[in-house]
Amino acid sequence: MSIRIFVTGGTFDKEYNELNGALFFKDTHLNEMLKLGRCKAPIEVRTLMMMDSIDMTDDDRETIASNCLKCDLDKIIVTHGTDTMVETAKVIAGKVKDKTIILTGAMIPYKFGSSDGLFNLGAAIGFVQTLPHGVYIAMNGRFFTWDNCRKNKVIGEFEEIR
Amino acid sequence: MSIRIFVTGGTFDKEYNELNGALFFKDTHLNEMLKLGRCKAPIEVRTLMMMDSIDMTDDDRETIASNCLKCDLDKIIVTHGTDTMVETAKVIAGKVKDKTIILTGAMIPYKFGSSDGLFNLGAAIGFVQTLPHGVYIAMNGRFFTWDNCRKNKVIGEFEEIR
Amino acid sequence: MSIRIFVTGGTFDKEYNELNGALFFKDTHLNEMLKLGRCKAPIEVRTLMMMDSIDMTDDDRETIASNCLKCDLDKIIVTHGTDTMVETAKVIAGKVKDKTIILTGAMIPYKFGSSDGLFNLGAAIGFVQTLPHGVYIAMNGRFFTWDNCRKNKVIGEFEEIR
Amino acid sequence: MSIRIFVTGGTFDKEYNELNGALFFKDTHLNEMLKLGRCKAPIEVRTLMMMDSIDMTDDDRETIASNCLKCDLDKIIVTHGTDTMVETAKVIAGKVKDKTIILTGAMIPYKFGSSDGLFNLGAAIGFVQTLPHGVYIAMNGRFFTWDNCRKNKVIGEFEEIR
Repeated sequence: MSIRIFVTGGTFDKEYNELNGALFFKDTHLNEMLKLGRCKAPIEVRTLMMMDSIDMTDDDRETIASNCLKCDLDKIIVTHGTDTMVETAKVIAGKVKDKTIILTGAMIPYKFGSSDGLFNLGAAIGFVQTLPHGVYIAMNGRFFTWDNCRKNKVIGEFEEIR
Repeated sequence: MSIRIFVTGGTFDKEYNELNGALFFKDTHLNEMLKLGRCKAPIEVRTLMMMDSIDMTDDDRETIASNCLKCDLDKIIVTHGTDTMVETAKVIAGKVKDKTIILTGAMIPYKFGSSDGLFNLGAAIGFVQTLPHGVYIAMNGRFFTWDNCRKNKVIGEFEEIR
Repeated sequence: MSIRIFVTGGTFDKEYNELNGALFFKDTHLNEMLKLGRCKAPIEVRTLMMMDSIDMTDDDRETIASNCLKCDLDKIIVTHGTDTMVETAKVIAGKVKDKTIILTGAMIPYKFGSSDGLFNLGAAIGFVQTLPHGVYIAMNGRFFTWDNCRKNKVIGEFEEIR
Repeated sequence: MSIRIFVTGGTFDKEYNELNGALFFKDTHLNEMLKLGRCKAPIEVRTLMMMDSIDMTDDDRETIASNCLKCDLDKIIVTHGTDTMVETAKVIAGKVKDKTIILTGAMIPYKFGSSDGLFNLGAAIGFVQTLPHGVYIAMNGRFFTWDNCRKNKVIGEFEEIR
């Protein structure tokens, strides 16, 4: 039972630049996180892009969706910034029907010790192996179908729409 | 969809005693870990015991199984030392039929920064919400049915028997 | 032998805002860091301001210097952003003659696990108890007199001028 | 101004063995800690032994003292378990007269995130550059002369004898 992780950036992978004090992207920490979690599930990690989800264009979302479509595995995790995670989920759902696709992310960068990323990654790996085909968002220990989920920007949590 | 976590101790919750250099148990870190993971799934944590699984007696396993039996929720996570996790899973499986019960643990104490516990807890929370009724072990990003799992003590990982 | 720490902000104390992804200041972490270091030297921490040193005005530097002047202890540590640490040291040195004053800071926020702040704080506490009266910068395990120090912004390290 | 660090083990360098749950020694973390602290003071690290100070024999203490004696630098830090740190300091003081020698250690292993080791190492690097020749213990942000120091084993802190 093999799993693909597509990395797109987001808070998950933000780094601190000690020369100018800004946050930026370099390489993904996903492999390091899987190692830290002693993960032995058969997973391949591929980086599609490294960006803030707030800067994503329609083209970027198409790229993500078409990679999900072309992927020969039917269990896919997409790491993604939380701000537009729901929009990307919608684009994927319009295009990919016969796979279990989980979008997940973090509110705190992994490199900040107190990250929720390791927990969310664990949960996503649980959900991707067990949920029926469909597109889901996994955050805060919960899962949501793509069409019944929004980010509550006041409290920084995901919730059902209805 | 409510989840119960029964805490029994194990590496998960070991502390370092700075006066004598020994590892020991005090209180569980489960609530702290759920907070760190920004978990919003409806979870109640109850401590049944705080012990090394290598020291568990038949009576201890009966206590765990009967708490699973009496629990009015059908989604249960049991945190447990890895050494005898499979034995306890077997006792629970003999007694409890109509619930999804996930045993999980850690190879490294949570208080040691590099813990696999947060990752395993995330995965267990994913599995408990989605797997059919049964007794499972969730370690290393994978899940195993209770009767097809053993700990490989040479490499410190769980694996299928057949 | 009592020591005063004046907090002025800087990278030391930056926090990550998980709602908007920006870095910001809230309360100082100095007391938490002293506790983590099991520090038992008699130290009082007082916050003068919480700001990026790049935003400091002449008035801010006067505030810091006059607090050093009025302080009834002769061992003072000032936590400070690294960008204009040398300018503030010069202003203090022009005003305060009979005290040992150590400016220190960090390149990485303390809340990012991999901080140099705890190490620099330890070194500053060592230097403040042992160096003769004067104004010094303590960074990177070294100390510099205020008039023979600059920050090399290319490599992010402090160095002697001559 | 060059500094030598002699590593002898102690809590500083203890590791957690995830296969059997015991604490043990492998390689020193001193170079990693100096890197984390962005230390640029000219320091050489040499490992003399890796042991619990409670297991040290008279021969081990002689080895440490004679390495301090032979060392061609006059600024030396010795990392050491806290239980018998004072005994080793006494043996060194009987043998080495014209150097500044600082013994330091930790109450919590560095690999346990919440270590006091990084703070103590910073302080020791401060003291070794500034204290006059003599043998000292640096713990808890304070320094003690070798002949006026004891470990209070009830509270786990060092204190003056008189």
